[in-house]
Amino acid sequence: MYPVKSYAVSAPEKFLAPFAFDRRALGPGDVLIDIQYCGICHSDIHQVRNEWGNSFYPMVPGHEIAGVVAEVGRAVTKFKPGQRAGVGCMVDSCRACPDCKEGEEQYCGHPVFTYNGYEKDGKALAQGGYSTRIVVNEDFVLRLPEGLPMDALAPLLCAGITTYSPLRHWQAGPGKKVGIIGLGGLGHMAVKIAKAMGAQVSVISRSRGKEADARRLGAEDYYATAEAGTFEKLARHFDLLICTVSSDPDWNQYLGTLKRDGTMVVLGVPSKPQPVHAANLIFGRHCLAGSLIGGIRETQEMLDFCAKHRIVSDIELVPMQKVNEAYERVLKGDVKFRFVIDMASLK
Amino acid sequence: MYPVKSYAVSAPEKFLAPFAFDRRALGPGDVLIDIQYCGICHSDIHQVRNEWGNSFYPMVPGHEIAGVVAEVGRAVTKFKPGQRAGVGCMVDSCRACPDCKEGEEQYCGHPVFTYNGYEKDGKALAQGGYSTRIVVNEDFVLRLPEGLPMDALAPLLCAGITTYSPLRHWQAGPGKKVGIIGLGGLGHMAVKIAKAMGAQVSVISRSRGKEADARRLGAEDYYATAEAGTFEKLARHFDLLICTVSSDPDWNQYLGTLKRDGTMVVLGVPSKPQPVHAANLIFGRHCLAGSLIGGIRETQEMLDFCAKHRIVSDIELVPMQKVNEAYERVLKGDVKFRFVIDMASLK
Repeated sequence: MYPVKSYAVSAPEKFLAPFAFDRRALGPGDVLIDIQYCGICHSDIHQVRNEWGNSFYPMVPGHEIAGVVAEVGRAVTKFKPGQRAGVGCMVDSCRACPDCKEGEEQYCGHPVFTYNGYEKDGKALAQGGYSTRIVVNEDFVLRLPEGLPMDALAPLLCAGITTYSPLRHWQAGPGKKVGIIGLGGLGHMAVKIAKAMGAQVSVISRSRGKEADARRLGAEDYYATAEAGTFEKLARHFDLLICTVSSDPDWNQYLGTLKRDGTMVVLGVPSKPQPVHAANLIFGRHCLAGSLIGGIRETQEMLDFCAKHRIVSDIELVPMQKVNEAYERVLKGDVKFRFVIDMASLK
Repeated sequence: MYPVKSYAVSAPEKFLAPFAFDRRALGPGDVLIDIQYCGICHSDIHQVRNEWGNSFYPMVPGHEIAGVVAEVGRAVTKFKPGQRAGVGCMVDSCRACPDCKEGEEQYCGHPVFTYNGYEKDGKALAQGGYSTRIVVNEDFVLRLPEGLPMDALAPLLCAGITTYSPLRHWQAGPGKKVGIIGLGGLGHMAVKIAKAMGAQVSVISRSRGKEADARRLGAEDYYATAEAGTFEKLARHFDLLICTVSSDPDWNQYLGTLKRDGTMVVLGVPSKPQPVHAANLIFGRHCLAGSLIGGIRETQEMLDFCAKHRIVSDIELVPMQKVNEAYERVLKGDVKFRFVIDMASLK
């Protein structure tokens, strides 16, 4: 057992506060990671506040975990102490279903999420990365590239793979017009990755407020939906749309900006079901699709891709003691573009 | 000019009644077809009654047209008098846009539909197949196979291609579990075609009432949604769903029956937008898509495929004088599975 310092919430209406608990003893295939940084994902806030109605408490959030291997179990072959290591949204899965066998563990009917659920043995609550150490089976630990800043790598474990996976699956690349809807934590990663894949990238946002940032990150074009005529101008324009906003967007308007056989992929879950006109699918053979993070194999592929293209997240580093303030700023969109908690502040 | 007998409606609330008009003189690339049979498509009823709000009158409906070439223009190379010929939902298109150039004229921004719109010259209303003769540019005329009953071939021109195109596009075939939602004019063609493509075909209908027909047509499995537990039993079951019903189905329930990376294709337009939960797209990387008839090249491919597999529609032949009664029976689902008008009754 490994004593751990962390921040946790004890109930939906509470603030995050210091919390001590023990990580499990190292099994033969386990890796103990000293956590250096952990990103703040919007879904942490949803779960802390039980906005999806499925929260367990006490809850230590955090699934954008970057650190260094401290110890390994006797059967571990992929990691050695001293090596950089990351953990994303999953720490295990059933490993038996077709999805798991095909390396798409995120679509397993019984994945073990990094927090807000039970460990694979069903006994203890899994606890996340707002903590000093974590024990994870080596098959769910990622190699983090050397030579890039560790703090800015952390958000790749969720925001990076969540955007990389659909961009790869729907073949963003040269000759493809890709529109990124929303420029937040996910959106800014999507712009960088789609650009590195060779696509012609546009950002679609409400106002012109984020245009300079969008262009700096790699967008060739920028469209403000608050301006009259934007959707008309974009009719039949995009091959692929990645929708990173969950604030009840009108999907029908966006579907109209797709070329024939274009796909719009939604990554966020709006608060209520969205109305879809069948005609917006039929005229143009459009697809409305969804995508969930990515499998472990693909997450490693994404990290290697980001290493090659020197892509990291744009972050603002905060001490753990400021996490509750950081949450409020996330909700206001007041961060460029991801908060990362410096775990040194907790040690 | 060619004088023509037909049945037309003069206003949304009127019945179809005898109507005489002239077809245009034969241009160099035109084909004059003596119409022998024309299918009754549910969309005829929608347009006759202006249920889509875009109807022009007088309107001669009909876009499942089967007949014999009577005359050809001097530049026609593909057809000769005496040859079987068919016309579907389109009689021309812009021919200049990327969709037209790629042989997907149905997605052209300016297709010329067979009726309920203007001819390509913008002067006269195009009039459909509930008539004795039609003049169509040879590029939009299809070769109908010999050796199969002409009356039962007519519905392939709309119901056939509308189901063939998505089955081909989303690769129905051996090893694929394909669910056909609804067993009417479109659905019964979808079952036959998917079966001939080698897929494992299921029919999904409200009650058990159509089970015997479904199995006779080639379905291996049959599911009744009115029975408790049907959707639970079908969780993660299908690779592809073809939704032929437009009576406000709950798409979310059907999305839950898709395997990872499964696609649900909607062919009909419900009366109002349908609510879609993002989670039903995200968990499973599901696609909700639409499909519109098919291009001319693909329509010919479908006819050749049906000839090879000896597929025609199951029809009930009616004289033109019974068309208004037939409409009422279509609305009650009281036809197995397509009405076809015998144009001899009009001559």
